Amino acid sequence: MATRSEFSIIQQYFEQLTPSRDDVLVGIGDDCALLLCPENHVIAVSIDTLVEGIHFFADVEPEYLGHKSLAVGLSDLAAMGAKAAWFTLALTLPEVNEDWLKSFSKGLAKLANKHKIQLVGGDTTRGPLSISIQVHGHVEPVKAIRRSGAKLGDLIYVTGTLGDAGAALQLQLGKWNDAALSVEDKHYLQQRLEQPSPRLEIGQKLAGLASAAIDISDGLLADLGHILDKSEAGARLDLAKLPLSSAMAKVDRHVAEQFALQAGDDYELCFTVPPQHFAEMEQSFKGQCTRIGMITDDKGIYFLNDHNALIALTGTGYDHFSI
Amino acid sequence: MATRSEFSIIQQYFEQLTPSRDDVLVGIGDDCALLLCPENHVIAVSIDTLVEGIHFFADVEPEYLGHKSLAVGLSDLAAMGAKAAWFTLALTLPEVNEDWLKSFSKGLAKLANKHKIQLVGGDTTRGPLSISIQVHGHVEPVKAIRRSGAKLGDLIYVTGTLGDAGAALQLQLGKWNDAALSVEDKHYLQQRLEQPSPRLEIGQKLAGLASAAIDISDGLLADLGHILDKSEAGARLDLAKLPLSSAMAKVDRHVAEQFALQAGDDYELCFTVPPQHFAEMEQSFKGQCTRIGMITDDKGIYFLNDHNALIALTGTGYDHFSI
Repeated sequence: MATRSEFSIIQQYFEQLTPSRDDVLVGIGDDCALLLCPENHVIAVSIDTLVEGIHFFADVEPEYLGHKSLAVGLSDLAAMGAKAAWFTLALTLPEVNEDWLKSFSKGLAKLANKHKIQLVGGDTTRGPLSISIQVHGHVEPVKAIRRSGAKLGDLIYVTGTLGDAGAALQLQLGKWNDAALSVEDKHYLQQRLEQPSPRLEIGQKLAGLASAAIDISDGLLADLGHILDKSEAGARLDLAKLPLSSAMAKVDRHVAEQFALQAGDDYELCFTVPPQHFAEMEQSFKGQCTRIGMITDDKGIYFLNDHNALIALTGTGYDHFSI
Repeated sequence: MATRSEFSIIQQYFEQLTPSRDDVLVGIGDDCALLLCPENHVIAVSIDTLVEGIHFFADVEPEYLGHKSLAVGLSDLAAMGAKAAWFTLALTLPEVNEDWLKSFSKGLAKLANKHKIQLVGGDTTRGPLSISIQVHGHVEPVKAIRRSGAKLGDLIYVTGTLGDAGAALQLQLGKWNDAALSVEDKHYLQQRLEQPSPRLEIGQKLAGLASAAIDISDGLLADLGHILDKSEAGARLDLAKLPLSSAMAKVDRHVAEQFALQAGDDYELCFTVPPQHFAEMEQSFKGQCTRIGMITDDKGIYFLNDHNALIALTGTGYDHFSI
């Protein structure tokens, strides 16, 4: 199916904005795109939808929305250790608003250009605003990082800092505040919520090194929980090690920890590293990743609190159907 | 991004329903699916969204909607001459309605099983009902049928019959009727609208034979128009040759022709065949395809009417943004 409107909108606002790759035999403008997978690699794909009122506010800057719509998919490729290559865009719009389209496509294209990925197909239709993007990458199958590979004794790491996006969301909803946060801090947190950075470079360097990985979209506990489920393992986390931004470090420690553990939308990576790669890991990713715990053979997640006592916690992440 | 709700809904209602293919290294339940493309083939992808109130009525049987949501994408693979392999599903639902999900997934799975394609990923979120499906296939690049290959003297063919779905839509909207149509005829037309048959087998047999192809989603004139635009050519059609179903053959001939030319949603293929393949074509596809005209070097589409006079017509297909 390819409606005429698709041609004008996708071609007019999007086609010229993303890089032209040699491995795209046919891009936008035919019944299908034709994509060349490198020899000895497999294709990695992931699809995500963002819906107004669920994943973003109606008044969000369209440029940021364009960025985020693509970033959430790229984050999945990062978690697999894949190299990003192409994406498709299914855009449902209440109307053809030129300003909105220009701004949205600008944010999308900026991120696409940063990672040299090409828009290869799309569909535009009329309806309540929602954006589905499928990302495509490739990876050597032996190097792909699955959720199921964590083993007893592996160390648990995360990239970046945790809880920033969750705190920004609660600030924006007016449900939480902390007097210690400056205007700049709040601006920083907001930017972390609206323009997450998919960790593609780190993800590719982790391919062949990490035993398991996931991106943190639903919160550390929920997403680490997926690794543990798939790996049939448990985890012990050191609460004092949870990496916080300088903004969140100003906040009441217990509250900051709750955001870091339970809030989603950070799009950092959580991954596990087996003993034989500890040294390489610590050397290669100095300052980019933080060791927060270890894989155990207990079921569930336990914490070392600041009195070095082991406590069990059963919090989980964000569920679009539980709110 | 992978929300917890996605796991339960996609896994509960969809994962077990589609075939398990050897070329799926990782399916549902990780950050990405990992898919193995056969050697010397390229991946063919297409994404489409169906939105309630635009592409389907709120009261449509969910089973038929499941069928159609997948069929429209498979039709794109057919038009490219590709072999269908995998699909992803981004489902936006106003609520978790078990009956709806069971019926929808039944229709989807029936078609997926017929063509041996596997659901490899998805996303479920809350919002106004809409369905985005990306289909993935593969094809030898030299055999892939593009829109741009039609040349002067090529014959123009279509599969099946034209205008059935468009007539059913107008009947359903109460905007048109014809006393000659029986209850069975109307039922047949309705089934053509709600459960189109993607022409995958014919498409694959056309790979290496046809010079250009497209699937008819917006109407013959609009879609043949895309082939002509891309191929920088014109066409002459013989109105008397337009293939009509036995139902539409009962209808006023001029009205039936208008449906056949302008109405969308048939999901038949329109393709062109160069002279060196005429004989093979006529022999291989006897009864499955109808020759309706020829590629010319004029711009635009001309018609031979029933007095053998050449007339120009400028009608076009259906545009989701023009209504």
